[in-house]
Amino acid sequence: MTTYHAFTEAEAVEYARTIPNLFTPGSELTSREIGDGNLNLVFHISELSTGNSIILKQALPYAKVVGESWPLTLDRARIESEALIIQESLCPDLVPHVFVYEKDLALTVMQDLSDHVIMRKGLIEGNRYPLFAQHIARFLAHTLFYTSDLGMNQQEKKERVKQFINPELCKITEDLIFDDPYHNAETNNVPPAIQDAIEAVWQDKELHLEVAILRNSFLTHAQSLLHGDLHTGSIFITQESTKVIDPEFAYYGPMGFDIGAVFANLLLNYAAQEGWSKDAESRADYRGYLLGTIKDVWTLFQGEFRSLWSLYGEDRLSKTEGYQDWYMQQVLRDTIGYTGSKMVRRVHGLAQVADINKLEDEAAKERAQRIALRIGTALIKHNRQAQSIDELLEIAVKAVE
Amino acid sequence: MTTYHAFTEAEAVEYARTIPNLFTPGSELTSREIGDGNLNLVFHISELSTGNSIILKQALPYAKVVGESWPLTLDRARIESEALIIQESLCPDLVPHVFVYEKDLALTVMQDLSDHVIMRKGLIEGNRYPLFAQHIARFLAHTLFYTSDLGMNQQEKKERVKQFINPELCKITEDLIFDDPYHNAETNNVPPAIQDAIEAVWQDKELHLEVAILRNSFLTHAQSLLHGDLHTGSIFITQESTKVIDPEFAYYGPMGFDIGAVFANLLLNYAAQEGWSKDAESRADYRGYLLGTIKDVWTLFQGEFRSLWSLYGEDRLSKTEGYQDWYMQQVLRDTIGYTGSKMVRRVHGLAQVADINKLEDEAAKERAQRIALRIGTALIKHNRQAQSIDELLEIAVKAVE
Repeated sequence: MTTYHAFTEAEAVEYARTIPNLFTPGSELTSREIGDGNLNLVFHISELSTGNSIILKQALPYAKVVGESWPLTLDRARIESEALIIQESLCPDLVPHVFVYEKDLALTVMQDLSDHVIMRKGLIEGNRYPLFAQHIARFLAHTLFYTSDLGMNQQEKKERVKQFINPELCKITEDLIFDDPYHNAETNNVPPAIQDAIEAVWQDKELHLEVAILRNSFLTHAQSLLHGDLHTGSIFITQESTKVIDPEFAYYGPMGFDIGAVFANLLLNYAAQEGWSKDAESRADYRGYLLGTIKDVWTLFQGEFRSLWSLYGEDRLSKTEGYQDWYMQQVLRDTIGYTGSKMVRRVHGLAQVADINKLEDEAAKERAQRIALRIGTALIKHNRQAQSIDELLEIAVKAVE
Repeated sequence: MTTYHAFTEAEAVEYARTIPNLFTPGSELTSREIGDGNLNLVFHISELSTGNSIILKQALPYAKVVGESWPLTLDRARIESEALIIQESLCPDLVPHVFVYEKDLALTVMQDLSDHVIMRKGLIEGNRYPLFAQHIARFLAHTLFYTSDLGMNQQEKKERVKQFINPELCKITEDLIFDDPYHNAETNNVPPAIQDAIEAVWQDKELHLEVAILRNSFLTHAQSLLHGDLHTGSIFITQESTKVIDPEFAYYGPMGFDIGAVFANLLLNYAAQEGWSKDAESRADYRGYLLGTIKDVWTLFQGEFRSLWSLYGEDRLSKTEGYQDWYMQQVLRDTIGYTGSKMVRRVHGLAQVADINKLEDEAAKERAQRIALRIGTALIKHNRQAQSIDELLEIAVKAVE
């Protein structure tokens, strides 16, 4: 039972029955495999009589996107589970509850969030989530502060760095975000209509230098325990609730990488409004909502992070005059740089986004791709000079003028 | 035999006999405990009949400098041994050979370097080491390049980061270098004659901000496997040979921290020439030698590091135009900042240096302390603006005008 093998639906049901206090003994359980990711099986198991349900997530020893030829360590299931448990301790309402983690099976049993929708889908449908900004800002502020040298014992933090060394998943990011999109790599999926713009990206030496510097920081800057893949497909949402899922890319890296992932995916949807909005007025309106959300997330994140720092920072030197301002400026700059990096790779890299790719009008799709590329490259080039989040918003506004 | 206990000299001899192919069976061996550090027993064991000898180094479970009340993990013996073995693989002639490492006893048996002198002592005696600059530059270039993301597989490097997580020894650095010297901490040993200058350090907010930023990088920037304590007391030297010893502070940190340690200790001796030189002419002459050595070390280090990068950098993005220049500038800036940090702490912190403290003329000692402080604080304040190593040299020259 505890030797690793990929579960069938029947086995998933059988396993779910063994978890204490979850289902009525002997009752009928149903299972569906609902994974749409690339790396895991995800079983939704529910009890017909009560409606109780859980998610049983099992890591696969390879990446589905490229077949079994890309083997992946099952250790990522440990990392995901341990990261979730830390996140739950810091913001219990913003992540799914973990019932069981079974290492040998690379298996995590967690709270079912079927009453939520994937945020990417919600945004594509044009929905608005009035509590999202404050939820995700709190998630970012608490998880990034309390896992950094500012918010935890600095010696324990070093043990955490060790716990979350995550070479294989980091390698995916290093290749697909920071390398392949900037040259004619086999993994790219270049949309033919924008071949000219992609070739310009491949030629742009100023851009390449900034990407190399951003990658250097991704490789070496062990600042906080990151989620590591915080796009809108890793967020379950309703009008009232926000749940961040799937931290299998968790590792110690620069805070701006997580914040930038959120902003990049809001801006990809912003670009995609070329096709999703029915007219210019609703397009401008929804884009205003998205930019307002980014501004709110940054403002709330920064405020909350600074409050935590001032109230709970135990470290004498962190109270040094000017240090907090210097630090937050670095986080802003990283955020802007990684926002750009995470946009560019979604236009013509291996893994793209439904916001743009599901557009049926080819002209609108092409405009969306060009806008995303324009914003992404401008943010990357601007990152080391940035002074304010408003500069990010201005770049986004200018790109659709 | 393999349960940890601190060795007596007799036990050290008994242990040395068990190492194959080292001593003649049954011959007479003598042992002396020669440790002058704070953290270890060091036995020198030699065979009278042949003159063969070895060093047997055993970690103590506490720091001697403050008695048994400061317990320290024996894991640092593992770190030291494993770091030595990596360094030996990269520059075999520049570190002592390790014969045996016995984990349970926190024991390392290594090459005896009694024919060398501790470089700090050699400099105090006014000796010059014409090969030192090229030796230490090669040590720095090879150990820092080949353990970084530039010179090794980036996924294996992450496993190395994990292997060298070193919380307890890093804590000593974090406190004694970056924290205590900048406020009225109990651990400080403030020389009464320069109380005014030390109080100015405690009040200097511009300085404190730079120190907080340098410490942040020490805490988070996992760039290369550092020696971690590369002062002139960790270097054995002759006219022909240089051997770097004692890497128990090894961890993944910013390259400039190791380079800065070398420069700081040359500059502490430079300051101490107030007392060691017999007249103004010989003082200027020896100081010129020390500054010339710093310049040579940087120039040779930088040249060799760039050559390794260009010849052996396997990473596509590291070839990005402008990236190498940007990277070397960061290393220079870190080097200048850490040089300053490592000088200031030696003036009035817990652990000081013989270069200054052994001066018998109190007026000369005071001048040396003030010069060291002037150079150290100026370097710290200048670090983020630095463009060239010449700026460091100018600061040193100006401080004695």
